[in-house]
Amino acid sequence: MPMLEIATNGRSQALDITRQVQQAVSASGVGEGWATVYVPHTTAGVAINEAADPDVMADVLMTLERLVPWQGGFRHAEGNSAAHVKSILVGSSVRVPVGGGRLLLGTWQGIFFMEFDGPRRRTARVEVSPA
Amino acid sequence: MPMLEIATNGRSQALDITRQVQQAVSASGVGEGWATVYVPHTTAGVAINEAADPDVMADVLMTLERLVPWQGGFRHAEGNSAAHVKSILVGSSVRVPVGGGRLLLGTWQGIFFMEFDGPRRRTARVEVSPA
Amino acid sequence: MPMLEIATNGRSQALDITRQVQQAVSASGVGEGWATVYVPHTTAGVAINEAADPDVMADVLMTLERLVPWQGGFRHAEGNSAAHVKSILVGSSVRVPVGGGRLLLGTWQGIFFMEFDGPRRRTARVEVSPA
Repeated sequence: MPMLEIATNGRSQALDITRQVQQAVSASGVGEGWATVYVPHTTAGVAINEAADPDVMADVLMTLERLVPWQGGFRHAEGNSAAHVKSILVGSSVRVPVGGGRLLLGTWQGIFFMEFDGPRRRTARVEVSPA
Repeated sequence: MPMLEIATNGRSQALDITRQVQQAVSASGVGEGWATVYVPHTTAGVAINEAADPDVMADVLMTLERLVPWQGGFRHAEGNSAAHVKSILVGSSVRVPVGGGRLLLGTWQGIFFMEFDGPRRRTARVEVSPA
Repeated sequence: MPMLEIATNGRSQALDITRQVQQAVSASGVGEGWATVYVPHTTAGVAINEAADPDVMADVLMTLERLVPWQGGFRHAEGNSAAHVKSILVGSSVRVPVGGGRLLLGTWQGIFFMEFDGPRRRTARVEVSPA
């Protein structure tokens, strides 16, 4: 199972990893099936959304910050509970169909590593399985 | 992989697609396994929740609108950032176990296509794989 | 497909079920693959997050309650719409990679059954499939 190495550079960041996931699909030799991306962190997640206009993911991060502000009167001593909540809202894995050896993403879709407590060095597992 | 054709008729709508997904399961001939529904759009999603009382999904849509209002001071020029955020909160795919050729949904569960920027013509992929 | 029996004891609760899911993985004999946990309820979900400090999940539940208060002016007569909304935000299934017969969770990760309308007797399906 290939492991992507990811370096984030903001506290919150939506990093487009579509190309790296496609590379794992190509390397797998799978024609028809599914790619799963799994994030083994508790203050980061993975999401699928618009990759064309970067303002979209900027709006997404801004809205998540409004809903779950960093300073939220939390108990957890490390002080990053907001990042844990955002990770649960966004989710820890995505699945994308594969056809003809390509990710069958919609026209506007990309795959984003969602950092909520960066900057950090992160990883994500990619598994590609035949249908 | 069968592709459902979906026509939504409100800006926000929770459309019960359980029957269409079950038809894809039946057509697949798979007895035991999993059905995955994947939405290739960035302003729509898919969710599992109560199909018995339509007031439940009305309450869900109302709450999502309260949390992420359409007018939110967003950057994205197209003006539909709220729909992108809701799609990420809800998610782009669901998996449901299959047994005896039937979706093993809980008593109250149905599968809903979640429209957040309609009305539009939409699609959803359904894949059924043996366990 | 093994079915976990779960008894919750609060209206909202994040119950660590990592050990039960690992038991299902061990019993399956699968070395490399994926474990999927599916919750067949409409007022509960499943999430992956920090299992080390219980304050983290307490903060998560507190934040979800702030975002979607129990009393929310809802239509659904049963009065538990908040629990339905939270279930959709959290999601009804998770997938975790398996290697060497063990859940390949990150260092801080655990799997939590998320109760939003307890206390109740609940179930969760676990399926383990080879890669």
